Amino acid sequence: MVNELITVESLALRANDDLAEMLRLLFESNSLAVSNWISSPGSGKTALISKLCQSLAVASFNTGVLVGDCATENDANRISSFGIDARQIITEGMCHLEASMIYEKIIDWNLSDFQFLIIENVGNLVCPSAFGLGESMRVALISTTEGEDKPLKYPALFSGCDLVVVTKMDLAPYCDFDQDALLRNISAVAGRTPVVMCSSKTGEGIDALADHLIAARNSGFRNVTLRPN
Amino acid sequence: MVNELITVESLALRANDDLAEMLRLLFESNSLAVSNWISSPGSGKTALISKLCQSLAVASFNTGVLVGDCATENDANRISSFGIDARQIITEGMCHLEASMIYEKIIDWNLSDFQFLIIENVGNLVCPSAFGLGESMRVALISTTEGEDKPLKYPALFSGCDLVVVTKMDLAPYCDFDQDALLRNISAVAGRTPVVMCSSKTGEGIDALADHLIAARNSGFRNVTLRPN
Repeated sequence: MVNELITVESLALRANDDLAEMLRLLFESNSLAVSNWISSPGSGKTALISKLCQSLAVASFNTGVLVGDCATENDANRISSFGIDARQIITEGMCHLEASMIYEKIIDWNLSDFQFLIIENVGNLVCPSAFGLGESMRVALISTTEGEDKPLKYPALFSGCDLVVVTKMDLAPYCDFDQDALLRNISAVAGRTPVVMCSSKTGEGIDALADHLIAARNSGFRNVTLRPN
Repeated sequence: MVNELITVESLALRANDDLAEMLRLLFESNSLAVSNWISSPGSGKTALISKLCQSLAVASFNTGVLVGDCATENDANRISSFGIDARQIITEGMCHLEASMIYEKIIDWNLSDFQFLIIENVGNLVCPSAFGLGESMRVALISTTEGEDKPLKYPALFSGCDLVVVTKMDLAPYCDFDQDALLRNISAVAGRTPVVMCSSKTGEGIDALADHLIAARNSGFRNVTLRPN
């Protein structure tokens, strides 16, 4: 009896889920707190992650960074220029990271060197949501310039994340940013998911973000929604 | 002899290409100039298209608009509020528009009412590039806040478009926007593709954009790269 429609897509997702689950076990056995950062292109992920790693370093935590892009090594180079251990994943046009790409990049990395691993996904609000990477925390970012309705228009990402980061708060006064409207829309799809307001330019919110990650790691990410599914 | 690898993905793309080609013939037989607008989420497509349609109306051209989003009818409602004939395509989570979705939305539309049809794709710099919609002009948009390296990081879109529109020029002074660097990067992947700098807030570039579309229509889009492939 076949009572389930099996598609090529669902088989690919299942294979990814299986590998993601193995990655999660590997990360947990190394006490490595792994987060998957997803946003539109140009929302300021790379600048924010660079600042965040520096804030974590002040608190004596080492962070490794994996950065996904369709092309160029620009982002890993930018992050490395701050003395952070960063590796680029070039997807050659693919619109999201998959667990197999993470596995290939970390296989020769000494994971016990790090307390945090930050994965910066390909800039895309849709496709990365479907592919778990073994992370214990999924972070959705949105910049003040993108429009307050984005959580409603991209509900899969925002309803499935563990933390929302609002970036480019320094530009808020210049783009008619309506903070109350954005928080209402986040709440409508993501319930009580925590939100941190940040600016890489002024430093607003960066230490609060680091504190949030440290607290989540100390609690063993026990309150975090399990991914995938 | 099979000398070509046929994948499920390539079969889906071919089916889309066939329908897109039929749509193109239909549009041409109605003297309808169709453009496909692709950008990141939040780059300001909807505001820009609303202004552009009003500028085209001043020059006595009627424009129909199709708007793609994963969820919500917000954008079609925003555009309609300016008296423009707009229809929403809700993709229910799909990351791009396909030719079949265009066909279903226009089948009961009187195409001869319009001189222009503008298709606002789902906000995504990757996946929409692979799916022709029968358009004779493909437009890539990038806002001043997104970072000057985006053309290098998303080469499939920028190398395959017929026009680049830079949006949110009003925010340029506040986000360290380097116009020369962006133009260099566009040129590196898109050669001599025309670029128009715009701001929906100040109106900068909107009439120039309308003039560009009108001139392209008058020339029968003869210089336009054919899509798909």
